[in-house]
Amino acid sequence: MFSPPVERLITELSKLPGIGRRTAQRLAFHILRVPEDEGLALAEAIREVKEKIGFCEVCFNLTDQPVCKICADERRDKGLICVVEEPGDIIPVERTHEFDGLYHVLGGALSPIDGVEPEDLKIAELLRRADDPAVREVVLATNPTTTGEATALYIGDALAKRRPELTVTRPASGLPVGADLEYTDEVTLGRALQGRRVIG
Amino acid sequence: MFSPPVERLITELSKLPGIGRRTAQRLAFHILRVPEDEGLALAEAIREVKEKIGFCEVCFNLTDQPVCKICADERRDKGLICVVEEPGDIIPVERTHEFDGLYHVLGGALSPIDGVEPEDLKIAELLRRADDPAVREVVLATNPTTTGEATALYIGDALAKRRPELTVTRPASGLPVGADLEYTDEVTLGRALQGRRVIG
Repeated sequence: MFSPPVERLITELSKLPGIGRRTAQRLAFHILRVPEDEGLALAEAIREVKEKIGFCEVCFNLTDQPVCKICADERRDKGLICVVEEPGDIIPVERTHEFDGLYHVLGGALSPIDGVEPEDLKIAELLRRADDPAVREVVLATNPTTTGEATALYIGDALAKRRPELTVTRPASGLPVGADLEYTDEVTLGRALQGRRVIG
Repeated sequence: MFSPPVERLITELSKLPGIGRRTAQRLAFHILRVPEDEGLALAEAIREVKEKIGFCEVCFNLTDQPVCKICADERRDKGLICVVEEPGDIIPVERTHEFDGLYHVLGGALSPIDGVEPEDLKIAELLRRADDPAVREVVLATNPTTTGEATALYIGDALAKRRPELTVTRPASGLPVGADLEYTDEVTLGRALQGRRVIG
């Protein structure tokens, strides 16, 4: 349809997740329209991450070293592993200052409909890490979504079979701070009630 | 948050239209995850279009020459200009084999909410082209959407002021071939009735 270079760009863009052919075409026209340096800045940014950034060989967090800063930090509790879906999920957990263990990045969540099976995630690697008797607890901090819950259940079962004495936890589900009961969906409120705690 | 190369990629990706910070982050993680050659293929495709492909200096269609193939084609009717929003809109018009004139690509549609003003589109260039007395008709084939209609109205007014004798048309709105009246929205059906034609 278009000239070969334009077709090639549309094809490459449509390989990105959630980008169909029409969106890819729109993005390609945008890239064609912006000033030369802006288009090349994107190309250069892609090239740079592919050349410099890789995954931590322990936890699969993003890093420009073989092992990421968190895994290399001697002060972190090596007996505690927090499992998250994506590298970006580490940031909010770190921000809480409530967690001083290590992480394990799965690279997504189980979703058979989208073709994401256990072998597509870093689950086998997690199970091997958790075989270390120094590991006391694994926190399954996958998202509170259908796929995140399914992933947590799957990993929880696998861990229980391999090391029945291991503590496996999941962050509490409940009302977000600042929420209004009147506008809270019943699933969240139900979880909040199931997880109710004695105060005072 | 992330290391500088990853931040840079997220920033560049979020400059693309319709891509917010969260989507940019998701795309960046995808690019980080795919094999090296797939990531670099995208970078290379962007670089290639920025280096090889530009806009026709007459009609602003995509081309690897100063003037595109259609504008350079001596057999095309130079008295007839079809105005479209994007280069991709030329393809379906060409496929009809009902049009043998030239094109003019605006580069979008007027949309004050999104900050798209007349000077952001190739409207001044169209008005200058239409000043040529050899031009008999301008077909405003912008999309049958709110922004496309507004753009057609705006250009129609501007053309009427400059060359009152020029014929300015718009493709008919009506029922798509193969449509079912029962499932046709009332705006389309209304347009189809307004534009009804004597048959036989």
